[in-house]
Amino acid sequence: PGMAKNTNMRWRLPLVCLLWEVAMIVLFGVFVRFGAEADAHWEEEKREMNLTSDIENDFYFRYPSFQDVHVMIFVGFGFLMTFLKRYGFGAVGFNFLLAAFGIQWALLMQGWFHSFKDGKILIGVENLINADFCVGSVCIAFGAILGKTSPIQLLVMTLFQVTLFSVNEYILLNLLHVKDAGGSMTIHTFGAYFGLTVTRVLYRPNLEQSKDKQGSVYHSDLFAMIGTLYLWMYWPSFNSAISDHGDAQHRSAINTYCSLAACVLTTMAFSSMLQKKGKLDMVHIQNATLAGGVAVGTSAEMMLTPYGSLIVGSISGIVSTVGYVYFTPFLESRLHIQDTCGIHNLHAMPGLIGGIVGAITAAAATEDVYGKEGFIKAFDFTGAYRTRTPSIQGGFQAAGIVVSLLMAFAGGAIVGGILKLPIWGDAAAENCFEDGVYWEVPEDEESDVYHMHNPDKPASP
Amino acid sequence: PGMAKNTNMRWRLPLVCLLWEVAMIVLFGVFVRFGAEADAHWEEEKREMNLTSDIENDFYFRYPSFQDVHVMIFVGFGFLMTFLKRYGFGAVGFNFLLAAFGIQWALLMQGWFHSFKDGKILIGVENLINADFCVGSVCIAFGAILGKTSPIQLLVMTLFQVTLFSVNEYILLNLLHVKDAGGSMTIHTFGAYFGLTVTRVLYRPNLEQSKDKQGSVYHSDLFAMIGTLYLWMYWPSFNSAISDHGDAQHRSAINTYCSLAACVLTTMAFSSMLQKKGKLDMVHIQNATLAGGVAVGTSAEMMLTPYGSLIVGSISGIVSTVGYVYFTPFLESRLHIQDTCGIHNLHAMPGLIGGIVGAITAAAATEDVYGKEGFIKAFDFTGAYRTRTPSIQGGFQAAGIVVSLLMAFAGGAIVGGILKLPIWGDAAAENCFEDGVYWEVPEDEESDVYHMHNPDKPASP
Amino acid sequence: PGMAKNTNMRWRLPLVCLLWEVAMIVLFGVFVRFGAEADAHWEEEKREMNLTSDIENDFYFRYPSFQDVHVMIFVGFGFLMTFLKRYGFGAVGFNFLLAAFGIQWALLMQGWFHSFKDGKILIGVENLINADFCVGSVCIAFGAILGKTSPIQLLVMTLFQVTLFSVNEYILLNLLHVKDAGGSMTIHTFGAYFGLTVTRVLYRPNLEQSKDKQGSVYHSDLFAMIGTLYLWMYWPSFNSAISDHGDAQHRSAINTYCSLAACVLTTMAFSSMLQKKGKLDMVHIQNATLAGGVAVGTSAEMMLTPYGSLIVGSISGIVSTVGYVYFTPFLESRLHIQDTCGIHNLHAMPGLIGGIVGAITAAAATEDVYGKEGFIKAFDFTGAYRTRTPSIQGGFQAAGIVVSLLMAFAGGAIVGGILKLPIWGDAAAENCFEDGVYWEVPEDEESDVYHMHNPDKPASP
Repeated sequence: PGMAKNTNMRWRLPLVCLLWEVAMIVLFGVFVRFGAEADAHWEEEKREMNLTSDIENDFYFRYPSFQDVHVMIFVGFGFLMTFLKRYGFGAVGFNFLLAAFGIQWALLMQGWFHSFKDGKILIGVENLINADFCVGSVCIAFGAILGKTSPIQLLVMTLFQVTLFSVNEYILLNLLHVKDAGGSMTIHTFGAYFGLTVTRVLYRPNLEQSKDKQGSVYHSDLFAMIGTLYLWMYWPSFNSAISDHGDAQHRSAINTYCSLAACVLTTMAFSSMLQKKGKLDMVHIQNATLAGGVAVGTSAEMMLTPYGSLIVGSISGIVSTVGYVYFTPFLESRLHIQDTCGIHNLHAMPGLIGGIVGAITAAAATEDVYGKEGFIKAFDFTGAYRTRTPSIQGGFQAAGIVVSLLMAFAGGAIVGGILKLPIWGDAAAENCFEDGVYWEVPEDEESDVYHMHNPDKPASP
Repeated sequence: PGMAKNTNMRWRLPLVCLLWEVAMIVLFGVFVRFGAEADAHWEEEKREMNLTSDIENDFYFRYPSFQDVHVMIFVGFGFLMTFLKRYGFGAVGFNFLLAAFGIQWALLMQGWFHSFKDGKILIGVENLINADFCVGSVCIAFGAILGKTSPIQLLVMTLFQVTLFSVNEYILLNLLHVKDAGGSMTIHTFGAYFGLTVTRVLYRPNLEQSKDKQGSVYHSDLFAMIGTLYLWMYWPSFNSAISDHGDAQHRSAINTYCSLAACVLTTMAFSSMLQKKGKLDMVHIQNATLAGGVAVGTSAEMMLTPYGSLIVGSISGIVSTVGYVYFTPFLESRLHIQDTCGIHNLHAMPGLIGGIVGAITAAAATEDVYGKEGFIKAFDFTGAYRTRTPSIQGGFQAAGIVVSLLMAFAGGAIVGGILKLPIWGDAAAENCFEDGVYWEVPEDEESDVYHMHNPDKPASP
Repeated sequence: PGMAKNTNMRWRLPLVCLLWEVAMIVLFGVFVRFGAEADAHWEEEKREMNLTSDIENDFYFRYPSFQDVHVMIFVGFGFLMTFLKRYGFGAVGFNFLLAAFGIQWALLMQGWFHSFKDGKILIGVENLINADFCVGSVCIAFGAILGKTSPIQLLVMTLFQVTLFSVNEYILLNLLHVKDAGGSMTIHTFGAYFGLTVTRVLYRPNLEQSKDKQGSVYHSDLFAMIGTLYLWMYWPSFNSAISDHGDAQHRSAINTYCSLAACVLTTMAFSSMLQKKGKLDMVHIQNATLAGGVAVGTSAEMMLTPYGSLIVGSISGIVSTVGYVYFTPFLESRLHIQDTCGIHNLHAMPGLIGGIVGAITAAAATEDVYGKEGFIKAFDFTGAYRTRTPSIQGGFQAAGIVVSLLMAFAGGAIVGGILKLPIWGDAAAENCFEDGVYWEVPEDEESDVYHMHNPDKPASP
């Protein structure tokens, strides 16, 4: 039956792309305007806010971090997924497509929740960062279904996931008043369990038919390392990008730097230890070395301290590597969760660790450690939250994990169901992990080696 | 006759490189000094300018953007052109060479026009950005003649093109008082039509002899995507790098971000739509997705608004993709314009769109939208330009397009004529797009597959 | 005898990684805390220091440069070394491992020397940069022994080299009061001669047995160019990252930009000139083009002037390229120094040039050129150094070179001796430059071509 699948995108993909882009233009036209710091009225704004210099514009506090985050989303996630021998175009190209759509929709969704004023969404550099963050959670989910879905399915998933992300984020940040600057809960836990639920719903019993294409070749592993390193290097920017100006951004960067450094050592240790001949496995180096960034996503801006970060990073590297060796095969064989990139190990478990560490760090906060002003500022214990204590904050943080999980499971189940409809043009099992299905692939010398199954066949009948 | 061509660079290339570098040293010695913000007298300068903090140094406003632009010129353009299966060394290496020379010459040329004071050129970070910008226009022109010229020809072209760029830029920015911060006119329109004219003059009737090397292989397409993504991600920095401090830089980045996001969707839509089987074409994804950055180059710092940016980005993605499918073959077969990278689609047409959108946006400006101060600041309606109205400004903007085109055609024709002289060591038609002509190429296993024509032969007689 | 070598890392590598990471956690726990600008008490600190804005936090002066330096260490050095056809995993992976360990140990070592207060090491963004710098010297030394050592040897070398680096740095910066912001002496001269001494001690007489793997293939040369370009582009950030706020950072970036641009031209010239057929050699382009950054490492923050930078860059490009053609073979055949990446040409000689240029530039400094305040600030002629004159400073700078050399030779000899112990699991000569020894390598189509010697064999007996 797989052979009869119609993967021809000719009218469906253009239709979705163009209609949605028109919708974006209309909605942006109605709603989106420049925030005060990007508007030409800035001179008057400066006077009103008593700012003496243009350098006080938020642009200069956050733009370098924004660019680093931008690289993580497009090169980081895009190239990380190029490890498959014949899915490099799809990895980097579809990631490009879904992220480019997702940031537009996220500007709207997050804008309605957080930057809405007098009927308009007022945007600035922080909105761009948040849009990239939101899309990051979609890139994570993409990792679970990599190679098994059509570009239209990815766009549909992006539409829904960005929406649900924004709702979940609103519940956490505004209703529960939870801190999560680096997104352990909102981005990683939510994104990963959402993606795992989707891939569970889309379970393909015959996927072993494309097993030969589900590995890497020598150079595809090097391409993937480009993605890994850019994620690893820029993660301090990711976790500090939307923290408060000053010490909070500074501290987030340091904590993340430390956590990631430790994570590399424990990953290497366990990668070697868990293999009979003691050889290192590129899959672990490409992925588990990043778990340290995920696992301090909530607590990095808190007074986690450098040695606390080393501990968190060390543990998450171990958990993640062990996950690749033992959990991933288990999830596939027993739970029918086919997780192409192992996002359960890189984002789901470390995301949970991150949420828990955040809750503990918040609950353990004292005025002594933070200083009187620093304590209030760090947790924003002002206004309605004036009387919140650290232990109560810790409780709400924990609640944030639970909410994110529930949203991910429920949302993933619904969206997975929608993606199961036989109208989206996904490939048959034997043509998964093969660029030839959706891309013009150069007929190079190696073609006869790779194209074992002619990917065009399914499209012809 | 092609077989008799002498492509040996041994004395010619070193001679040009060394003589020109000596000339640079002499001219820098006579003319170039540190500007006030990079000079050790800065402490006194600060006092004089009433600055209270080192953070007011222009370095901190522009250095992060400078580095992003720097990456675009060297990795962005360099790797974008590695898509050819056997011209990766030439793409990234010659781009490196011409850009490294070009930025030195641009510092001088632009310095004489814009930073000349008491017989000295005073440089700072803004000059570095402008030098990179100027060289960007040479990288664009290089795209048209990629694979068909010797490194000496590229250096000669760089010398002349940087000179003409600086003259054109002076006419536009100083005489016409035109706004063009992202260089839709000065960089893209000028650079692209200059390059297209050069490649027309250098028309090679027998180029189909190297047709087999004018395509990509699987991994060369992934290398090219590195270039694409760095150009795409950092384009907000490109368009905002030399805008006024504060809101203008902030706004430029937002407009460019929006335009590029929209451009990806329309590019994907048309790439799929224009192919019988609906498959995506890497050439389009690598190039047309960037047209949105080009097309807001003039207007990004104006109050184009986010939805205006989405519209411009959407249109430019469509125009560019359609160009790759229909115009490029037409240009080659009918007009004898052999455009290796399709710069007509990525830079020329989107550059024109950018110039026109800039003229319209300027003409439509009102004090209401910009605020009284913002209006004057945005268009620099001070001094001699105190009385200029938006509609007159729009007219001058349009004149800027025409001047850039004329300079490009005239300059390209002359420089093309110079490059046609039989002394520069370009390869015969059957050896185009082949690194072996100018590079030591590792004799790897694949060599017998690739080296269908021995590239050394022409050099031997 | 080589065949009997046990390269199995299964227990040794995990043991070293885990024990050392635990040691890091304990030492960080005892010693490392956030500095004032990253601590939650920042609000109080601001008041005390009379700062009116968060933008005065050192984070905003240095974080963009830090991220650039971070990219240089992990992507720059990592990918630069992927040029070998079958050692890409080891190049980028082991570099990742040693740098991740090294930055932790460097934070401690440098912290004890420079940021120790009341029993605690107080860290901020400048410490992160310095840790990256310190590790840079290890990455340099790694270049000499690339492909010939086990990951444990690299970790052991890192432990000792970071320690010695910190001692040497303390002697230069604190005892000799030497200026070396870009590390020509502390990073490059020390790192390179240390590495060269180590590789001399580890001399392998039978290395020609793996000669077939000591070259590049077409695409591995392109991967290496990624490393080259990121080093080249971000070097202005490297040399300016820890300079004084304001003019010094600004000036360092400009000088480095100029030096590197000139270096590209002279490298291309000599690469072509020194080859019979005038063809360019990728090894030179990948490496010698960077010598200009090394050679202004000491003087970039001084009033070297742009034309001075062009001269230094031009010379260092020539010296480095000549080194690759003539010195490297000489060092190997006569002095038994097997220098895989040619660090003698890229770091050792240009590092010496950098130290000398720094000494001359310092000795030539005048109050006229720097301004009265600028002169004192640039050389920190305050306190105990109030009476130091430029010529005395020049003498101390020269002494810094000598000390760095002595530390490198003595340290390298000792560490080389330690690494020679037969317990570290290095590979036999015929298995050098082969990822299969320490990595799971995908069994791709090309495997039968590459795996001429089965790298597993030595591990089995």
